[in-house]
Amino acid sequence: MDITRNGSQPSAKGPADYFTGQVRLDARFNRDESRVGGATVTFEPGARTAWHTHPLGQTLIVLSGAGFAQREGGPVEEIRPGDIVWFAPGEKHWHGAQPATAMTHIAIAEALDGKVVDWMEKVSDEQYSR
Amino acid sequence: MDITRNGSQPSAKGPADYFTGQVRLDARFNRDESRVGGATVTFEPGARTAWHTHPLGQTLIVLSGAGFAQREGGPVEEIRPGDIVWFAPGEKHWHGAQPATAMTHIAIAEALDGKVVDWMEKVSDEQYSR
Repeated sequence: MDITRNGSQPSAKGPADYFTGQVRLDARFNRDESRVGGATVTFEPGARTAWHTHPLGQTLIVLSGAGFAQREGGPVEEIRPGDIVWFAPGEKHWHGAQPATAMTHIAIAEALDGKVVDWMEKVSDEQYSR
Repeated sequence: MDITRNGSQPSAKGPADYFTGQVRLDARFNRDESRVGGATVTFEPGARTAWHTHPLGQTLIVLSGAGFAQREGGPVEEIRPGDIVWFAPGEKHWHGAQPATAMTHIAIAEALDGKVVDWMEKVSDEQYSR
């Protein structure tokens, strides 16, 4: 048993290569003995991930605010606190806050051969506002 | 992409065989395409799991309240909102609320050959109040 105490991990900035706008990563978890890892991710209004895929899929648990999520070829869908979002392995998608409202979710994904995500191009303003 | 909307899953009662006291399971997630699953678990004051192990370990993210967690042979430790608790594969342990205070956590675990947990004996009042 190992307890990572609240406050013991500094907040991290979502890298500009993979995110549009201001994104903060907190409460990261990740173990050598486990292929599951994740973080609590906070998107300021208008902020979002780039398009990406996960080799073994991803689960989001929305904690607060109001967000958007979209898989390639599908509509932009609203996501709200308590919603659980599943992206299938290899499914190209993005997620983020709404234009005027921040959004926080927990993100959970499994690594395949040590890799948890493949990052792609940014979500354009046109795609985001559709 | 599949969204399980908040309110679309009825709350479930933690089975009396595996829990002491009143325990509620919400926001369960579980996919045929993924070995990761979990739930938001709420323990009323004094409520706790039985002793158990997970074949591939377990991660808890404490959301609210004040709880206890213990691995076999270790001390009873306090857990609080924002704490992340990791139990190694096969590590015998329990978790729950404090005597006068409820506790809610998200629990995340991987299934091995379809099995996510091995349940054991209940946590006695003597063990719980140590």
